[in-house]
Amino acid sequence: MEYKTVIYSRHYECDAYGHVNNAVYLNYLEHARGEFLKEIGFDYKGFVDAGYGVYVIKISISYKNSALPEDKLDIYTTLAKRRSASGTFNQVIKRDNDIICEAEVTWASIGTDGKMSPIPKEWDVPGLHI
Amino acid sequence: MEYKTVIYSRHYECDAYGHVNNAVYLNYLEHARGEFLKEIGFDYKGFVDAGYGVYVIKISISYKNSALPEDKLDIYTTLAKRRSASGTFNQVIKRDNDIICEAEVTWASIGTDGKMSPIPKEWDVPGLHI
Amino acid sequence: MEYKTVIYSRHYECDAYGHVNNAVYLNYLEHARGEFLKEIGFDYKGFVDAGYGVYVIKISISYKNSALPEDKLDIYTTLAKRRSASGTFNQVIKRDNDIICEAEVTWASIGTDGKMSPIPKEWDVPGLHI
Amino acid sequence: MEYKTVIYSRHYECDAYGHVNNAVYLNYLEHARGEFLKEIGFDYKGFVDAGYGVYVIKISISYKNSALPEDKLDIYTTLAKRRSASGTFNQVIKRDNDIICEAEVTWASIGTDGKMSPIPKEWDVPGLHI
Repeated sequence: MEYKTVIYSRHYECDAYGHVNNAVYLNYLEHARGEFLKEIGFDYKGFVDAGYGVYVIKISISYKNSALPEDKLDIYTTLAKRRSASGTFNQVIKRDNDIICEAEVTWASIGTDGKMSPIPKEWDVPGLHI
Repeated sequence: MEYKTVIYSRHYECDAYGHVNNAVYLNYLEHARGEFLKEIGFDYKGFVDAGYGVYVIKISISYKNSALPEDKLDIYTTLAKRRSASGTFNQVIKRDNDIICEAEVTWASIGTDGKMSPIPKEWDVPGLHI
Repeated sequence: MEYKTVIYSRHYECDAYGHVNNAVYLNYLEHARGEFLKEIGFDYKGFVDAGYGVYVIKISISYKNSALPEDKLDIYTTLAKRRSASGTFNQVIKRDNDIICEAEVTWASIGTDGKMSPIPKEWDVPGLHI
Repeated sequence: MEYKTVIYSRHYECDAYGHVNNAVYLNYLEHARGEFLKEIGFDYKGFVDAGYGVYVIKISISYKNSALPEDKLDIYTTLAKRRSASGTFNQVIKRDNDIICEAEVTWASIGTDGKMSPIPKEWDVPGLHI
């Protein structure tokens, strides 16, 4: 499943060169992953309230073009890899047909003891499987 | 008591015009108030852990000059008014002798019932009196 | 004219207490004023390219309630006062019927010499008059 | 050469979980690279004013531990690879002996025609060679 979210860049997210700051794309990608999780019915709040956690452990991001203020940005999120206690999202931000950046985001799930641990079955919804 | 904190503006805090973004100064002022509270020995974490709270209810800020990336900024914080359950800080950000901005920041203290309530005596340290 | 913009708060705009950070509202208000200016046909980019400028000189903001992640926020922007070389916006951010914050934002227009100066007629569109 | 910069995390840089937000580390790393460039005598402003540019084209960052508000963070920056028109920094953020995150940051230099191009000799200071 490829999930698409739209976000509009804002003036105050741009740096002194008038480009969206490199760090801000990580915010956009985080926002898009949150939307993806809602779309597949993953109850993130409940999961955290039950003592579990999901942490991002690695991000690789390639910057291809600069986004400008008020650009309409399409963010495409796909779950590309999945193991019992971790997984990797591929995410692409595009402005029309131009790729702004591409990212691989690897996460790990954490049990109530704070150690890496498989997502319990009741939370491991179909959308988290490839 | 006037308390002075130094902060250096960073490139990524500047907007497309190369000036520190207007909202960022509120972050600087918040940082300086935190330093002020540490200086006077107010145990903010303990206060919050005990169920109390302090909220900013009003900020009036006048912008006089623009700060640029890597400016050394001196922030002067003074408790200007004090009532039992609220108070007002005066804060000035300067670069050398130039005023960048001046602010009045009014806060209220909240009891364990979430309503406005005087700061309990054990927390109401001398530095919170004028 | 009252202009309404909608913005959704994002997780990464919240602080350690799970509330939208006080400084972030200034970003939201700036965004809404930009939308207001587009709505009334004020060519901000052209204005700046021609050597003029508009600067915010004062903001007074009262915080009434805290916004949470993913809140739908309605921002209402009205030009409340207008003089030849300055003006004041009233802005209110609401979540449904709850007021999150209210602000008065005063701006000044600057001529090509960098000094406060009336907005030239060709830029002074009807929407900038009350 | 390994260059060390110190930065203190600020409350407003933390997310709803009380941890420094993942995107904020990219800001810290950018800040540290700027300090590195100053240390080696690279005149970034002059370089940009002369029509050249340096862009980050890829960042790979691994998150090991979470930083908390007011942590003293040591950022170590090393130029790990160098080609005529590009290079890679290794950067590590530590709190005492704990690694917070490790990053590889690849950049490319751009000529006055906007295309990837070697850094002109007068700008290619010794500190940019390994």
